[in-house]
Amino acid sequence: MKKTALPRLSRKRTTKSGLPSGTLVYTGERKDEQIIIHVIDFDEATFVETELTSVEACIPYKNKPTVTWINVDGVHNVPMLEKLGDCFALHRLVMEDITNTDQRPKTEDYGDYLYIVLKMLSAGKAEEIVTEQLSIIAGPNFVLSFQDGQEGDVFSLIRDRLRNNKGRIRKMGADYLAYSLLDAVVDNYFVILETFGNRIEQLETELIESPTPGTVQKIYQLKRELIFLHNAVWPLREAVSSLGKLESPLIREATVPYLRDLYDHVVNVIDSVDIYREMITGMLDMYLSSVSNRLNEVMKVLTAISLIFMPLTFIVGLYGMNFKYMPELNWQYGYPVVLFAMLGIGMSMFFYFKRKKWL
Amino acid sequence: MKKTALPRLSRKRTTKSGLPSGTLVYTGERKDEQIIIHVIDFDEATFVETELTSVEACIPYKNKPTVTWINVDGVHNVPMLEKLGDCFALHRLVMEDITNTDQRPKTEDYGDYLYIVLKMLSAGKAEEIVTEQLSIIAGPNFVLSFQDGQEGDVFSLIRDRLRNNKGRIRKMGADYLAYSLLDAVVDNYFVILETFGNRIEQLETELIESPTPGTVQKIYQLKRELIFLHNAVWPLREAVSSLGKLESPLIREATVPYLRDLYDHVVNVIDSVDIYREMITGMLDMYLSSVSNRLNEVMKVLTAISLIFMPLTFIVGLYGMNFKYMPELNWQYGYPVVLFAMLGIGMSMFFYFKRKKWL
Amino acid sequence: MKKTALPRLSRKRTTKSGLPSGTLVYTGERKDEQIIIHVIDFDEATFVETELTSVEACIPYKNKPTVTWINVDGVHNVPMLEKLGDCFALHRLVMEDITNTDQRPKTEDYGDYLYIVLKMLSAGKAEEIVTEQLSIIAGPNFVLSFQDGQEGDVFSLIRDRLRNNKGRIRKMGADYLAYSLLDAVVDNYFVILETFGNRIEQLETELIESPTPGTVQKIYQLKRELIFLHNAVWPLREAVSSLGKLESPLIREATVPYLRDLYDHVVNVIDSVDIYREMITGMLDMYLSSVSNRLNEVMKVLTAISLIFMPLTFIVGLYGMNFKYMPELNWQYGYPVVLFAMLGIGMSMFFYFKRKKWL
Amino acid sequence: MKKTALPRLSRKRTTKSGLPSGTLVYTGERKDEQIIIHVIDFDEATFVETELTSVEACIPYKNKPTVTWINVDGVHNVPMLEKLGDCFALHRLVMEDITNTDQRPKTEDYGDYLYIVLKMLSAGKAEEIVTEQLSIIAGPNFVLSFQDGQEGDVFSLIRDRLRNNKGRIRKMGADYLAYSLLDAVVDNYFVILETFGNRIEQLETELIESPTPGTVQKIYQLKRELIFLHNAVWPLREAVSSLGKLESPLIREATVPYLRDLYDHVVNVIDSVDIYREMITGMLDMYLSSVSNRLNEVMKVLTAISLIFMPLTFIVGLYGMNFKYMPELNWQYGYPVVLFAMLGIGMSMFFYFKRKKWL
Amino acid sequence: MKKTALPRLSRKRTTKSGLPSGTLVYTGERKDEQIIIHVIDFDEATFVETELTSVEACIPYKNKPTVTWINVDGVHNVPMLEKLGDCFALHRLVMEDITNTDQRPKTEDYGDYLYIVLKMLSAGKAEEIVTEQLSIIAGPNFVLSFQDGQEGDVFSLIRDRLRNNKGRIRKMGADYLAYSLLDAVVDNYFVILETFGNRIEQLETELIESPTPGTVQKIYQLKRELIFLHNAVWPLREAVSSLGKLESPLIREATVPYLRDLYDHVVNVIDSVDIYREMITGMLDMYLSSVSNRLNEVMKVLTAISLIFMPLTFIVGLYGMNFKYMPELNWQYGYPVVLFAMLGIGMSMFFYFKRKKWL
Repeated sequence: MKKTALPRLSRKRTTKSGLPSGTLVYTGERKDEQIIIHVIDFDEATFVETELTSVEACIPYKNKPTVTWINVDGVHNVPMLEKLGDCFALHRLVMEDITNTDQRPKTEDYGDYLYIVLKMLSAGKAEEIVTEQLSIIAGPNFVLSFQDGQEGDVFSLIRDRLRNNKGRIRKMGADYLAYSLLDAVVDNYFVILETFGNRIEQLETELIESPTPGTVQKIYQLKRELIFLHNAVWPLREAVSSLGKLESPLIREATVPYLRDLYDHVVNVIDSVDIYREMITGMLDMYLSSVSNRLNEVMKVLTAISLIFMPLTFIVGLYGMNFKYMPELNWQYGYPVVLFAMLGIGMSMFFYFKRKKWL
Repeated sequence: MKKTALPRLSRKRTTKSGLPSGTLVYTGERKDEQIIIHVIDFDEATFVETELTSVEACIPYKNKPTVTWINVDGVHNVPMLEKLGDCFALHRLVMEDITNTDQRPKTEDYGDYLYIVLKMLSAGKAEEIVTEQLSIIAGPNFVLSFQDGQEGDVFSLIRDRLRNNKGRIRKMGADYLAYSLLDAVVDNYFVILETFGNRIEQLETELIESPTPGTVQKIYQLKRELIFLHNAVWPLREAVSSLGKLESPLIREATVPYLRDLYDHVVNVIDSVDIYREMITGMLDMYLSSVSNRLNEVMKVLTAISLIFMPLTFIVGLYGMNFKYMPELNWQYGYPVVLFAMLGIGMSMFFYFKRKKWL
Repeated sequence: MKKTALPRLSRKRTTKSGLPSGTLVYTGERKDEQIIIHVIDFDEATFVETELTSVEACIPYKNKPTVTWINVDGVHNVPMLEKLGDCFALHRLVMEDITNTDQRPKTEDYGDYLYIVLKMLSAGKAEEIVTEQLSIIAGPNFVLSFQDGQEGDVFSLIRDRLRNNKGRIRKMGADYLAYSLLDAVVDNYFVILETFGNRIEQLETELIESPTPGTVQKIYQLKRELIFLHNAVWPLREAVSSLGKLESPLIREATVPYLRDLYDHVVNVIDSVDIYREMITGMLDMYLSSVSNRLNEVMKVLTAISLIFMPLTFIVGLYGMNFKYMPELNWQYGYPVVLFAMLGIGMSMFFYFKRKKWL
Repeated sequence: MKKTALPRLSRKRTTKSGLPSGTLVYTGERKDEQIIIHVIDFDEATFVETELTSVEACIPYKNKPTVTWINVDGVHNVPMLEKLGDCFALHRLVMEDITNTDQRPKTEDYGDYLYIVLKMLSAGKAEEIVTEQLSIIAGPNFVLSFQDGQEGDVFSLIRDRLRNNKGRIRKMGADYLAYSLLDAVVDNYFVILETFGNRIEQLETELIESPTPGTVQKIYQLKRELIFLHNAVWPLREAVSSLGKLESPLIREATVPYLRDLYDHVVNVIDSVDIYREMITGMLDMYLSSVSNRLNEVMKVLTAISLIFMPLTFIVGLYGMNFKYMPELNWQYGYPVVLFAMLGIGMSMFFYFKRKKWL
Repeated sequence: MKKTALPRLSRKRTTKSGLPSGTLVYTGERKDEQIIIHVIDFDEATFVETELTSVEACIPYKNKPTVTWINVDGVHNVPMLEKLGDCFALHRLVMEDITNTDQRPKTEDYGDYLYIVLKMLSAGKAEEIVTEQLSIIAGPNFVLSFQDGQEGDVFSLIRDRLRNNKGRIRKMGADYLAYSLLDAVVDNYFVILETFGNRIEQLETELIESPTPGTVQKIYQLKRELIFLHNAVWPLREAVSSLGKLESPLIREATVPYLRDLYDHVVNVIDSVDIYREMITGMLDMYLSSVSNRLNEVMKVLTAISLIFMPLTFIVGLYGMNFKYMPELNWQYGYPVVLFAMLGIGMSMFFYFKRKKWL
């Protein structure tokens, strides 16, 4: 069992415990890498893509009429993020939530912008689930996204669509872009679900064909991961639902059906997780019953063999007694008769147990 | 265990993951068959039934005052569906949901038309449940239905009623027709429930009369299917309920009681599925206790037989000792007396265990 | 296990599947008996009681100012019911629900009348629960009740009160009469609950004093019946609650407290069913632990006896060896000393196990 | 197991089944004792305490401006209660609920007075829970309380406070008095909870130190009582909550915080009951695992001892064979060598199993 | 199992049962220590910190325009608290709740001030959870906090921030100070969760590597503590949520986002507790299956060894028979042939069981 694959909910918080609210402290695991700021600025006609290393270069984008998408990859450089937050006039609590990578998925309306935080999931090597926090700030004409992790290829398809002006993404506003980012993350959940589905099917086969004590550990491990997955996805339902119902000018009328569609996808994911959890429960019951069945089999064999040999051993013991007057011992055919009698007893018991399916 | 009978929730999605919303990608399993477009156009007085192969032929039906039912059998021909969608001015997301056959049952009001998606269930050979997505577009005077599967005979009775002008179906509007389609699907659920009921009763008999290790696999398989069935039916409750409460001109006053009736049927189905699931749980408990009971029986037999033969074997061993001075050995009646003593011991223990129900 | 006692939820529906809504098809089990129409017409001063065989005779009662109670015993004569429905202007769906005896308990307000459907329960021979559908139509001055079954004596007390002008039943209107019918049915649930209570107490005693493999089947059977009972009673809560909150002129102000009282009774029944279900769960746990305990007992006996005889058998085998030079064999007191030694070993082990409670 | 200690929910109802609503029938267990009517009439300045035996003597108290508390001890004298009810103009259904001692806790607002019914709990001898119904009628300046049982000392502290003018009870109105009665009952629940807590702790110790088959019966018994306790307390939450939210002139503004406080206490009781129930579930799991562990221990001993003696018995059997040509038998040191070999085998196996913790 | 570490919900209440509401009785465990009153008075410019021993010295702070934080450490000196309560015009019920240390977490709006009560958790020695009640009174310009326990260092960081004018705490009002106190308590919950997380991971390792009967007791102990933890934290969700939604002038607009943030933290804690509880359930299942597996292993060894020695013992018994005419006995190679035959039988069975993984 790879223990490192298991999320550790409470660990990271403690480094922050006791500090005043609004203090920016990075609680994730990356420390040294360079933060990458990737900017795409577009409207239907124009498209500019750059990579920045200084925050100050972001400032002009704030009030440009074109839509600007600033993707920050890495949230461990706190002073840099602080400057960015000040530039876009973000609330201190939002900045705190961005750097604190244990947020529960949620949507918050700060008037001038929306703050959405959720979990990106990816399958690490060895099939364990790796979670990564994604924060999205959706303003009137800008979208900021903050990832704590390697630049996933989850967004690369969106970039392609922007570059090539595919679909309606360049025609619509910042809200549709924010939706597209969310949609890409949720679509990726289905990939994770598929690996879960495969693992469950493998376990089912293992359970039916050759259950071992290790099977129950795999079941437990799967259950554990599903508990965490459930926890990462469940609050997203509420977050996306509230996004769709928001009476905010930041969400245009035309985007609402897409958010409703996104909500359907999230509910679909939650349904699947619930199905998997119920199946895991059923598998555990099946495992326990298979253990009991095997014990039964072993005991039947022991009992049958004991029952065959016990009378035979008694008989040979009987004629091993040293009584002076035992007429059978002196009878010439005593030995073969006893041999045949024992053979008869043994055979008949053997077939009796064979018929009772004990052997 | 037929593994292919089990629905695979997450599989199909992945082919679509990452594409922009509104991209039509067929995610089902049929690929090559010809799409069949079956059109029925009627009002109380007239009735026309045709089969089309080109989408363009549908266009005139859009604005005819008569009620038109266009049933599209097969949703894998994406360009054809796209044309049809454009013709009836359907939203891209609706078209996407129609071709993506993993939708959760739901109702959506797009103003000019209602979009309803649900699952049709049928029992395949080998009793496993086969699900098929049915999308219904209910406009003011047209109903479009999209099936991903063979033309089920679920709708054949409705066609008969239309042809023969039976009941009130020709007198009422498109909303009543849409209701009739939904009702036919839900009525068919009861057929599925009956096969479940039969399988559960067979399992109960098997459980009481001759439980085998295979029984628990059947129980698990049934549980698994019920989980999926529950998932296919549960969201329908909400979908039908919201349909009845919709303040839309598309739903006439006279149709509302029928929708309420439909809702009752759906709740009835859900109740049955819940009952079956609870019974499955009870059956598993019964199976586990029967395994334990059989183990008890086996152990009692082993213990009783061991207890009968152990003292006897001890006695014959005793008189097999080679001490020089063992008075009994020389006594003339030693052998028969020991034989009778052992017979007495064996018999009394046998009857003791018989009375204690161990044998 | 009497299988016929178990309700079969899905069976009956299938005969109807596919027919248009509003088609009257009887789905119960009675086929041939004569339908009995029993009419009581009363106000505070007058009282007339008749039995009709033709539906047409009912018509005059519709608009009489006195309160009329028409009790129809048997819903399998569809044409007759159709005529009655037309006479009182009942909606086709109501008529359909009356003949289809698998309705979920519910209340529906059709403006001119209320439709209430619920389950009457009675204990058949062999203690199994028999359910029967009761439909009540409460109009401004008439009450129609439709029973699918033998004229239960559940209503006989109400008839007596009407005949003898006992209580306030003749002074109040049709709504109070309808309430009285519902109250009689719900009061009868308590009789059923009592038989359940008795069976549970018997099972508890059996479980403590002499649990057998049959006990778990009884527990399962009880659980199964409670699942169905729960299902028959649970929706009634909602039905009665909505009846009390109805803003209908058909329900007079003075009747509302009685409906609230009825609601309390229904909740009381549901509470009891839930208590019984929880107790059943506890009994199953107790049964499983008693099986494990008995296995423990058996194994302790086997182990103790084996442990006593194994060293003794070893010793007698030892002195049965044929070595030429075994000094003990020639010692005069060898045999008695070994005998006493074995007695000592056996006795001390026996008492050791006695003290450890293994024997 | 004391079966008489267990509440029997359904029993009592049946004597009433079928009677018209509003018929007063006593459904409790007391039959003959004298009803005691205890009256306290007070305002801040005056205090009068009397005991009445005739109902008529109550009448003058109805319209006195002082607050009157009439406590009726015993509800089995139906005609007497009927007179009292008429005198204070109580609804027939209220009177019925007072005499029918199986009410679910609830609050009902009848305009001129409030009707509150709940359960008083006390620990009988042998620690079982005894429930008793308490009905409270709170009018503008009178409080009637009806107990079905011995005059509990639950109210004696309130009487003392009234007599000695302690606290604010004499300064406030009838609503505060009613609250005080409820508070006294709920405070007493904590005493019951404490006995439950003690029994659970005893069971926990028993479970860890010396679990016996009787332990599981005690656990089941406790679970059973907690189910009933939960049922007696759970509806009280709703009843007290609705009391606090009532827009009735009968509840003064100043009393509302006290009702909120009472609500907190009720929720506290429910929390405790839920905690106890969860602990019971955990204890059952622990019991089952301890039974399995003991079985494991027994089997390990059996297996180890069998494994030690089986080869030894084989060896002594080997040299008990009667072959003519067995060289070892004639060897002078054969016997001691075999003895030492067996000692070596036995010892090494013994220590092996000792190290493996099987012995 | 340290029993003293377990919270005892019901114990303390009983000393108070029966007393009139509003009677101040200390129900905690401290009796003798000196109460410490620690006062901090500040605004953005000024800062005064004192420690008082007399309550009267608090009075001037009530109406000072600066923000005053009075922290009372110890609630067992009832007369002192009474005076303090009178000085700040607190309701008797509030004072009662402060001294009664078994309150459920809650928020109450008394108009002039808010009353918030919650649990402070800390890990005692031996890892058990110690709970302590914290009451907070938030007035327009004062905050009173009452701790039943040693002055925890939970608040020391807040004091530092006040002394050093760090963050925005000195710039904002009493409501922000109250929020900061709550936030410090909730932040500390994460420390507790971390110790839980560690214990669960240790248990998981123990469960996989070397489960003992003591493991299940640890699991039960952990489950028990989680039940209590859940109970201490769950009502806090409602309390904090209602605080954020309060339409009170005591809560400034600028503080609301902080309360929302606090709410997120509380929900995060609850999520973690729920995850831990689900994991505990999974661990119990795994333990039970590991016990069953070990039993299976033991039984397989017993059965295999029995099956090897039973035929061998039979054979040596066979040639120990004393028949006169047994040709093999006189055959010169009889003994070695039998020896080899037995070796062959023993070896082949040994390898057979080896291959079947029974040995």
